[in-house]
Amino acid sequence: MLQIEEAQAMLTEQVRKIEQTERVPLADALGRVLAEDVTAERDQPPFPRSPLDGYAVRAADVAGASKENPAVLHVIGRIYAGYVFDGIVGEGQAVRLMTGAPIPEGADAIIRQEDTFAENDTVQIYVSSEPYQNYCFQGEDYKAGTVLLPKDSRLDAGKITVLSSLGKTEAVVYRKPSVAVISTGDEVLVPGQPWSPGKIYDSNRAYICARLTEAGNPPVISMHAADEARKVADEIRKAAQQADFVITTGGVSVGEKDILHDVVKLLDAEQLFWKVRIKPGSPTLAFVCEGTLVLCLSGNPFGAIANFELLARPVLAALTGQKDWLLPMENAVLQNDFRKPAGARRFLRGCLENGKVYINGKMQSSGAIASMVECNCLVEIRPDMAGAMAGETVQVYRL
Amino acid sequence: MLQIEEAQAMLTEQVRKIEQTERVPLADALGRVLAEDVTAERDQPPFPRSPLDGYAVRAADVAGASKENPAVLHVIGRIYAGYVFDGIVGEGQAVRLMTGAPIPEGADAIIRQEDTFAENDTVQIYVSSEPYQNYCFQGEDYKAGTVLLPKDSRLDAGKITVLSSLGKTEAVVYRKPSVAVISTGDEVLVPGQPWSPGKIYDSNRAYICARLTEAGNPPVISMHAADEARKVADEIRKAAQQADFVITTGGVSVGEKDILHDVVKLLDAEQLFWKVRIKPGSPTLAFVCEGTLVLCLSGNPFGAIANFELLARPVLAALTGQKDWLLPMENAVLQNDFRKPAGARRFLRGCLENGKVYINGKMQSSGAIASMVECNCLVEIRPDMAGAMAGETVQVYRL
Repeated sequence: MLQIEEAQAMLTEQVRKIEQTERVPLADALGRVLAEDVTAERDQPPFPRSPLDGYAVRAADVAGASKENPAVLHVIGRIYAGYVFDGIVGEGQAVRLMTGAPIPEGADAIIRQEDTFAENDTVQIYVSSEPYQNYCFQGEDYKAGTVLLPKDSRLDAGKITVLSSLGKTEAVVYRKPSVAVISTGDEVLVPGQPWSPGKIYDSNRAYICARLTEAGNPPVISMHAADEARKVADEIRKAAQQADFVITTGGVSVGEKDILHDVVKLLDAEQLFWKVRIKPGSPTLAFVCEGTLVLCLSGNPFGAIANFELLARPVLAALTGQKDWLLPMENAVLQNDFRKPAGARRFLRGCLENGKVYINGKMQSSGAIASMVECNCLVEIRPDMAGAMAGETVQVYRL
Repeated sequence: MLQIEEAQAMLTEQVRKIEQTERVPLADALGRVLAEDVTAERDQPPFPRSPLDGYAVRAADVAGASKENPAVLHVIGRIYAGYVFDGIVGEGQAVRLMTGAPIPEGADAIIRQEDTFAENDTVQIYVSSEPYQNYCFQGEDYKAGTVLLPKDSRLDAGKITVLSSLGKTEAVVYRKPSVAVISTGDEVLVPGQPWSPGKIYDSNRAYICARLTEAGNPPVISMHAADEARKVADEIRKAAQQADFVITTGGVSVGEKDILHDVVKLLDAEQLFWKVRIKPGSPTLAFVCEGTLVLCLSGNPFGAIANFELLARPVLAALTGQKDWLLPMENAVLQNDFRKPAGARRFLRGCLENGKVYINGKMQSSGAIASMVECNCLVEIRPDMAGAMAGETVQVYRL
């Protein structure tokens, strides 16, 4: 049976990074991936700028100044932030200016207001100053021509603020991957349908769609299909024509109603694999239809969840070129014992807090749903471990 | 001057947790906060359920069975997942059933298909079984009447999947806080406007709006207002009437164009404080207008950012009752020296990776924007530290 990493490699080999781009308003660009380098068009600040409220002076004119022996300068103007002063600060002159205002020509130092006393058109300066003290140089933040954000950067709030500082209203980003999610199974009711004996409500599709939405990538198709091979084949074909990636749940095991095997034949599709060495969810199946990768997960709730996290995410990472799609792995110290029959590489629901992970042994049945309330990570039990004991370090994947 | 914690307490005292509720479709409920307990209406599974493909039998009938000495049973029916079998499994009888199918009355064990051989209407069973082996009990996941999700739970994908398993199509959640963001300053251009000398583009508003959006709470108002006290007062009043919380940037220092002081008077508002012992962004001002809290941040980019993170987030946490709004604090080991004049409690832009934090000393000017590209945390330098040296442990707040 395939190892998880082999299955991941077979899946990601089938997809190409999406290179189509689109232009989106900056307000909608959060989380998107830049499709071009963003270069500064002008220096930032675009002019020498005062970092405080005070007076622009020539440092030479205030040499040796003190409270007892102030330098007295002639105030020739006043500059508010956003405005420009046309004159030049000459010997014995000063210009009053506010935080953010452009420093006028001739001045090479800013004296803060608290160290001055103004009267009529003169100002007494109580301190001396080095040249270029309190002086923000033009371009000290960044220079025109600098690539501030390289292509393939993922736009977080910090990068959005940089784009806005450049005066951008839009960003050129890669198209998002379009993902279709189809749940199957005659026992599965769509929420809202009345319950009847033998039925359960669909929960797998809600999980997968919520995880996609959480990552800023809600599904383009989300539907349920009844256990009829021809019908499911039709829906998968339609989805494959529209989407970059199709995920299904249910119908992949060995029972008579495990119709996905028939679906592969009906679609005349290329099967990549069936069964992966993972517990839960081992009967995962993958095939290519109309050039689109179709990943068919177990219908067992935690089987679907674990296999989505471990097998679907690498596909999304490959489609977007963004490793952020992959779950971060970290070490954690197990807080309680968990015994299991050896052999399978097993993933458990865990609750991670400050490097400590708790496993509720009673809630590990792969059909159990309620335990997802407390679960914030997957805990890996390697095949060579007969279980894990409190105090052992285990690998966890934060959900 | 106020300590940060004192300012936080003064701010959060002014707001009440939002208690209004609304009903949202489950697909839109991710990240929302439940406003009522969610209780299971029926057991899960709603019936005893087969966890695999095989045969429902009476354990007594297969006692001692082996490959060499199989138990031969009469197959009286077949159950697919989603369907119900009306009969009772009697002595010497078996029912073929698929994963997820209800276990019929009379049977107390499930034998997996791989351990059987079927021919016509009989099946040979090659293994013995304990009673209730491979048997999922009705209600073993959760029982009718159980509170699965208590009021005030924040809905993540795991909780959404539980709601869906209950057949819910909607969730009753608290209304989101409505936040208005107003930038001020004559030097500030709205992106899209042509650049002219003395001007810079608005970046603070983009940051704050992106951070709100990231948390699932995009602003209800986002606008720029020119430095005219009456105009800014009008916009703040209108925003305060509509929103739960108003955030402004700029105009709070000591210069002539620091008009927010006049705005407070024009609005006849109750000023809570002006100036907090924090660097950058100390001139932060707060007041109450029309019963709504207004937090006025420095216009200096990193001043606005740091004060949004440290002072606005606690307000949002208080409005929602959700501590998730607060930045998680952790310890990290500084990788390089940073010296600073003692006195102020200072926050620096850092880059955190695996418990190590790097500070780019050149990029700490509070007017610098480009350094936000690499910044993923705030690093705190306490007032009693004359700086920090490589190898020291510092407190960081992950952005």
